[in-house]
Amino acid sequence: MLYVIGLGLCDEKDITVRGLEAVQRCTRVYLEAYTSILVAPASQLAEFYGKAVIVADREMVETQSDEILSGAETTDVAFLVVGDPFGATTHTDLLLRARARGIATNVIHNASVVNAVGACGLQLYNFGQTVSLVFFTDTWRPDSFYDRIRENRDLGLHTLVLLDIKVKEQSDENLARGRKIYEPPRYMTVTQAVTQLLEIEEARNEHVLDPHTTLALAVSRLGASGPIPQSIRAGTLSQLRDLDPAEFGPPLHSLVIVGRRLHDLEVDYARAFAIPTNTNGTDADADADSEWVRVSREVYGVNSI
Amino acid sequence: MLYVIGLGLCDEKDITVRGLEAVQRCTRVYLEAYTSILVAPASQLAEFYGKAVIVADREMVETQSDEILSGAETTDVAFLVVGDPFGATTHTDLLLRARARGIATNVIHNASVVNAVGACGLQLYNFGQTVSLVFFTDTWRPDSFYDRIRENRDLGLHTLVLLDIKVKEQSDENLARGRKIYEPPRYMTVTQAVTQLLEIEEARNEHVLDPHTTLALAVSRLGASGPIPQSIRAGTLSQLRDLDPAEFGPPLHSLVIVGRRLHDLEVDYARAFAIPTNTNGTDADADADSEWVRVSREVYGVNSI
Repeated sequence: MLYVIGLGLCDEKDITVRGLEAVQRCTRVYLEAYTSILVAPASQLAEFYGKAVIVADREMVETQSDEILSGAETTDVAFLVVGDPFGATTHTDLLLRARARGIATNVIHNASVVNAVGACGLQLYNFGQTVSLVFFTDTWRPDSFYDRIRENRDLGLHTLVLLDIKVKEQSDENLARGRKIYEPPRYMTVTQAVTQLLEIEEARNEHVLDPHTTLALAVSRLGASGPIPQSIRAGTLSQLRDLDPAEFGPPLHSLVIVGRRLHDLEVDYARAFAIPTNTNGTDADADADSEWVRVSREVYGVNSI
Repeated sequence: MLYVIGLGLCDEKDITVRGLEAVQRCTRVYLEAYTSILVAPASQLAEFYGKAVIVADREMVETQSDEILSGAETTDVAFLVVGDPFGATTHTDLLLRARARGIATNVIHNASVVNAVGACGLQLYNFGQTVSLVFFTDTWRPDSFYDRIRENRDLGLHTLVLLDIKVKEQSDENLARGRKIYEPPRYMTVTQAVTQLLEIEEARNEHVLDPHTTLALAVSRLGASGPIPQSIRAGTLSQLRDLDPAEFGPPLHSLVIVGRRLHDLEVDYARAFAIPTNTNGTDADADADSEWVRVSREVYGVNSI
């Protein structure tokens, strides 16, 4: 049996009881560690499970899946995935390969950013399609996300923007020379994301986003408790761009662009996360004067706040 | 502390380890049991947790929240929610009430249909807004879901359709007379849902849905293993409507309407769920002849299958 088990959002204790029992039955346990990350390192998972955990990088999952599936006809193998197993195409692919080899499969679900983002106070049924934002380079600045955000915007829907992570990537030069030297991991921050979004807005100029009248929420370390807990900040794009990047803290970051179907309960819930207008980040009583509330009222037309 | 804890999709073992530890710390444990249900009864949860579980119906949550929150300033209270805590507006409301009373809150996430629906093989980033379908009555046939499905359809996006459940509802007569007599619980089936969808299509006639050229997936008991496991069936709306309702089995049911951005990996993954063209439901080898594959190719233009 191949178990594909969601780990949820934060650390070793976010696995479900069903998932933990399955892990403990397995003879081999792989951890997919390139489409997302937990706050906890693999060693912490291994200690909690009482099992060795093999960290599977992109190369192993995409080109050596036979090794992962080896013997799974007769023994139990676990493939652990941050969030929910169906968060990335690559896991669907592994399930298809198992099926093609006649290996029984069992998927154990968990929270992922796609549903847990409700923690920001916006209702899930008001979200449109989810988009991904990749790190821009000098020569590679894909902007199809902009069309997706516009489609959501035209319907008044919120957009969840997933931010790029680069784990165990090779530089162009090392790749060309076949040298297995890897760059340090990079995780896109909210500051980088908003900067890229506004750069594309300026280039395309289709008025999908506006620094001062588009509201957004920065969601950092969704689901994390512990020493560096989850943080959510709400404001205009320019407020988020200009906030001290240290305010958002360590990865992972996500961003939500607020659509015009915004309603009062959503504004009310998220006002606890509002960046004060003076942006010094400390004046919690400035709530009534926050851009979050002012723009909700004046631009989005939420009058009951 | 008020803990709002997602239970996931199926039974007592879908709680996370973090959630279980929190439950076991609490002096009172409530189970919200009217916006969704688990396969397992409350007594099974109570036994597994080693804690009494108080079943909270709509009336208790919406009008007696003070009772739930009582003492949570100084003791730990758990409010258990099927799926993820942010799946229903009513839970956001409870968190707001706690915040207004100065009670610390802690949300523990879990899988919900909104992310676990990826199990049907369709990619989450290809979904548009989620819609809800309520039981029609002679006088109450709201059809705004039809506009939402059209909006998704126009963008080529899939639509997750959540089906109504009625738990502890009073008849109009009992309500009017103030008699606390409740109707038996009702859970909308895929068969009822598709019938209602096609009825509205016929009335509005805006060609959003077609019995023979719109593909859909019926998802029953998502995430369930055990004696009556999860079931997924893929085909045209007319195939789903005409399939023996017993094929879908007990609740909960959900439905996914397939959008035109359908791609080959999605078709390929879901072909394992395809209803054979002869609709006798047993001919698993008829895959190549299924309406799922034929319509994907001829109507949706997925040619690589």
